[in-house]
Amino acid sequence: MSGGQLITDVTVATMADGADGCGLIRDAGIVTGGGTIRWVGPMRALPDACRDIPRTGFGGRLVTPALIDCHTHLVHGGNRAREFGMRLEGASYEEIARAGGGIVSTVQATRDTPEATLLEQALRRADALIAEGVALIEVKSGYGLDIETELKMLRVARAIATRRPVRVVTSFLGAHAVPAGMDADTYIDTVCLPALDAAHGQGLVDAVDGFCEGIAFTPGQIGRVFDRARALGLPVRLHSDQLSNLGGTILAARHGALSVDHVEYAGEADVRAMAGAGSVAVLLPGAFYTLHETRKPPVDGFRDHGVPMAVATDWNPGSSPMGSVLLAMNMACTLFGLTPTEALAGTTRNAARALGREDCGMIAPGLRADLAVWDVEDPAELSYRIGVNPLHERIFGGAA
Amino acid sequence: MSGGQLITDVTVATMADGADGCGLIRDAGIVTGGGTIRWVGPMRALPDACRDIPRTGFGGRLVTPALIDCHTHLVHGGNRAREFGMRLEGASYEEIARAGGGIVSTVQATRDTPEATLLEQALRRADALIAEGVALIEVKSGYGLDIETELKMLRVARAIATRRPVRVVTSFLGAHAVPAGMDADTYIDTVCLPALDAAHGQGLVDAVDGFCEGIAFTPGQIGRVFDRARALGLPVRLHSDQLSNLGGTILAARHGALSVDHVEYAGEADVRAMAGAGSVAVLLPGAFYTLHETRKPPVDGFRDHGVPMAVATDWNPGSSPMGSVLLAMNMACTLFGLTPTEALAGTTRNAARALGREDCGMIAPGLRADLAVWDVEDPAELSYRIGVNPLHERIFGGAA
Ligand SMILES: [Zn+2]
Ligand SMILES: [Zn+2]
Repeated sequence: MSGGQLITDVTVATMADGADGCGLIRDAGIVTGGGTIRWVGPMRALPDACRDIPRTGFGGRLVTPALIDCHTHLVHGGNRAREFGMRLEGASYEEIARAGGGIVSTVQATRDTPEATLLEQALRRADALIAEGVALIEVKSGYGLDIETELKMLRVARAIATRRPVRVVTSFLGAHAVPAGMDADTYIDTVCLPALDAAHGQGLVDAVDGFCEGIAFTPGQIGRVFDRARALGLPVRLHSDQLSNLGGTILAARHGALSVDHVEYAGEADVRAMAGAGSVAVLLPGAFYTLHETRKPPVDGFRDHGVPMAVATDWNPGSSPMGSVLLAMNMACTLFGLTPTEALAGTTRNAARALGREDCGMIAPGLRADLAVWDVEDPAELSYRIGVNPLHERIFGGAA
Repeated sequence: MSGGQLITDVTVATMADGADGCGLIRDAGIVTGGGTIRWVGPMRALPDACRDIPRTGFGGRLVTPALIDCHTHLVHGGNRAREFGMRLEGASYEEIARAGGGIVSTVQATRDTPEATLLEQALRRADALIAEGVALIEVKSGYGLDIETELKMLRVARAIATRRPVRVVTSFLGAHAVPAGMDADTYIDTVCLPALDAAHGQGLVDAVDGFCEGIAFTPGQIGRVFDRARALGLPVRLHSDQLSNLGGTILAARHGALSVDHVEYAGEADVRAMAGAGSVAVLLPGAFYTLHETRKPPVDGFRDHGVPMAVATDWNPGSSPMGSVLLAMNMACTLFGLTPTEALAGTTRNAARALGREDCGMIAPGLRADLAVWDVEDPAELSYRIGVNPLHERIFGGAA
């Protein structure tokens, strides 16, 4: 085998499908070449053909697949720190709205921020994730609510991947909120669908997302957006059952959604529908924490019905100003009761599945050599600590 | 003024006593010299004598006092990730204990870890805090529970300050837990008090701490430790009212405690006693979060009675494996309802007070020039984000 690289003196959590727990291999080796994984296994089983390729030892450290943040809104203008402070000082919802707070303020700031500035800010956020060993980030539009700004957000999302060693998957989230002074149906017809057509035409859209909630859109309205996605050949995902259950999850499953996200209020029928559709449940504990929610997602139901669970930051300026996948993993354990193994699967294998990217998220021959080397001995340590980043080295496409 | 340095083009949160909120000064300047602050104010009021000293501009960034972590157990052996995982996999308390979990495992690991290794591990933890602009860290003993290991922990704590640009305040916490096979009174008499005498004799103790709780020591036992502290001329602090109210806070106040820590179960009389004694309430939301506690500290009571509130990580391997002061600030807001201004006072001015170090924690003439420069515009942003570190530069004793 020529041109390869042997990573040795490591414990590997392969996260391979069907493996026990994390698929842990001690005294392991990983052979990479041409940006992909060629071989992984215990060193004693290293193929003869691999004995002479250059080695890098990692002093017994843990190697996992590079992490994946499969749900973010990290392209956005401004911040909502002032609103955060006002709320804690006892301001009412109306007072905050009168002071220009809420999603309206993020929409205004995102419209007003020049594209280059928006990119600079997004890159700083991406850098925080990359510093935690993240190699694949999902980024949504949805703070434009006009055609021009939705396109600008998606161009910025695409640009991240040209400026940093990270891959980006985009979701068109035109159906995120109803802009002031417009009714929801008019917005869908005159802004959302034309924006989706335009963005798709420019190659800016990997999937179509929506927000099905009392404060956003009905299943009927989301259904029209999903029908257009189908016509364009785009997969869908949905923010659903976060604050109430309007039937969005059933709708998403009917459209074969890659993922249904939040899902705190999902019931038995929703879980069954997700299982039937093969949809991933994306858990977003940062928003649950920030909003003081109490209703937890049906984790036992997902387990019982074999619905894969992913975990993500939901990085956004309002309900989850969270820039750490590792912290999302801890919160998924502490707040939702996931095991550390489930939390790690949630930011590797199942996150890849939620994005329809089956070329990463595990350490197995043929997959991308996107790896994270950690200053820890046991995979559980990644979820156990709070606000600590034990990344030793990040390997992207086989290159450190 | 010679040999000085002018920090300019900044917004300054002085956190000065008596100032409104954060004591914010826009278009500000700070003059430092000889490791201390010589002047702070709006640039338009810069004294003529300071006009010619060398300037460093910070592009409009926010400057705060360097942060202070006033309650940590960051010297310890091992970690409890396995126990964290077992609990989430449904293991009972007994199963965890049988597998060697709980504080016993940390005591064993701390005893077994060589002093040099213990220091290396502690330095990595200190580095995580320093990276967030922390310039003063409190570190406790309490995982030795034998004379030799208590001394070892305190030597390691002292050594941190010789190896890193940070100051360390030590607390002797011999009365942390009762070692297996010994009754609490015997432990106090034959281990704790002799260890305190020895540690004090070697100059290793800045203050004396204890854990007053059903699973630890009674007020009567703590009182004997505090009496010894008084005889040695050492100030006291106490872990009190975390899981129940045994009267520890009243005891601590009677001894003029610098701080009373946790205090979730403190009642009106406790708050009054703290106010009377001038004790700081040290809030530790990381432990509250990790242990799924529901009883919040009486924040309104502290406000009403003028008890200063500090915020700290409580960094320890069991109940708060938290390595981020900024995250502790967010949790103090989100979980306990502090305002961002209170959270910042809690890791600056009031944290200094909790440690009896009145030479830092504010930006005012005569105090140490320990500063943090942040990539943010508003102090509220420091508490608002979750798992993000916006430190731009850390200035310790006037040196970047
Ligand atoms: Zn979202
Ligand atoms: Zn403690």
